[in-house]
Amino acid sequence: MQASITMAQQPGVQYLLRIADTALILAQRTSEWTGHAPVLEEDIALANVALDLVGQCRAVLTRAGQLEGQGHDEDQLAFLREERDYRNVTLVELPRGDFAVTVVRNTIMSTFFKLLWTGLQASSDGELAAIAGKAVKETRYHQQHAADWLVRLAGGTEESRSRTDHAVADLWRYTAELFASDAVDEYAHATGLGPRWSDLQDAWRVEMEHIFAEAGLALPAPLPFLSTGKQGVHSEHMGFILAEMQHLQRSYPGGVW
Amino acid sequence: MQASITMAQQPGVQYLLRIADTALILAQRTSEWTGHAPVLEEDIALANVALDLVGQCRAVLTRAGQLEGQGHDEDQLAFLREERDYRNVTLVELPRGDFAVTVVRNTIMSTFFKLLWTGLQASSDGELAAIAGKAVKETRYHQQHAADWLVRLAGGTEESRSRTDHAVADLWRYTAELFASDAVDEYAHATGLGPRWSDLQDAWRVEMEHIFAEAGLALPAPLPFLSTGKQGVHSEHMGFILAEMQHLQRSYPGGVW
Repeated sequence: MQASITMAQQPGVQYLLRIADTALILAQRTSEWTGHAPVLEEDIALANVALDLVGQCRAVLTRAGQLEGQGHDEDQLAFLREERDYRNVTLVELPRGDFAVTVVRNTIMSTFFKLLWTGLQASSDGELAAIAGKAVKETRYHQQHAADWLVRLAGGTEESRSRTDHAVADLWRYTAELFASDAVDEYAHATGLGPRWSDLQDAWRVEMEHIFAEAGLALPAPLPFLSTGKQGVHSEHMGFILAEMQHLQRSYPGGVW
Repeated sequence: MQASITMAQQPGVQYLLRIADTALILAQRTSEWTGHAPVLEEDIALANVALDLVGQCRAVLTRAGQLEGQGHDEDQLAFLREERDYRNVTLVELPRGDFAVTVVRNTIMSTFFKLLWTGLQASSDGELAAIAGKAVKETRYHQQHAADWLVRLAGGTEESRSRTDHAVADLWRYTAELFASDAVDEYAHATGLGPRWSDLQDAWRVEMEHIFAEAGLALPAPLPFLSTGKQGVHSEHMGFILAEMQHLQRSYPGGVW
């Protein structure tokens, strides 16, 4: 068994981990559709989205390891942390649910990520800016794809509409966390590493309102509930994800593995 | 709820379904690794393999629907059949297991598929020959990738070697089904649609012996047990796979979906 690594708590590293971990866990949930999507074309599309997300995660973790300066590579960061050291938002760790849940979550997250990557293109960290330049193109497609499905589901049958409504109702309370800025964000903003996540909220609501209007859905009001994944306090689902994720890395030889 | 479709039993269609279904179910099992592979690079590699397999499945199912002539498209064929109408070999429906199981299974299957696609490039059906031309290139990479890992696992630590040995012992009894030819194969052979699967066995053993020798593993002798997935008689795992696969297609509106 390989032991967990101990993470330094530099705010710049924390900022990057929030991005990378959110992409990684969303990738896992998205890839659960392979062979289960409503049509084979969609199966392939979701698998491609998951691939992009893993690629983005990998690039950002590599950079996080360099900034941390403790010699941790992207795989150690991906697989050898304790649960409290994962910094993904809670929204992405919620179970896959039905297809409507995936479509609503991917609409929320791709819209958020598109705005985040857009801001990160101007990062004072040249490496991160380069990663963002590639990621923003991928994410633009993810958003278009998710939004198209949202319109289709909301305007489909009574059942697909009802499932969409339920998915929105279930997921909405987890969106506030995306925009809850703290000292980590202030550091990123002050150093030019990247935008405060709270500064993305207005643009996000505008884009979401536009998409929801096209789907004939009303955008819910913000809710006071604040989930805490970014602080390392996760839902009960996270333990299961990590148990499966980490089993291999901890059981097999490290190094090249 | 959408009802199941009733499949015609033409041998040519059955021959294609065996290929497509085997690729589809293997894709599902492979994609279960996203976010769980030992290193992020491997995560991405396995997701790419799964994507290729779904793409191959989709192309072959489209052709099967055309040959069947009942107007079934690839999505109806993928998602609306009864369990007994799925024709994948039993080997691919076995649970994902640990990483060694995946590596051994992918070595077995990619070697088989490479030989099958190679033969199918000469198919009397021009569409199938074209599909095979693309697939054989993809599958060559899958085989190389799986074989590299097999060597690495078998020559790794005591634990990785022991897991590899167990995976070979567990999976080997399901390989005989790959080469059990019947009337469907005779039809394909006689019409030039594709090779008898039994005719691939010698070449498969030669390639597997070479890979196993490089890994320092002895190739087990063929076993008399014959699994029956190709005949539509599946293991207990298949019902769970289909329940999840079909839920969506049956619950949501058909057509564009």
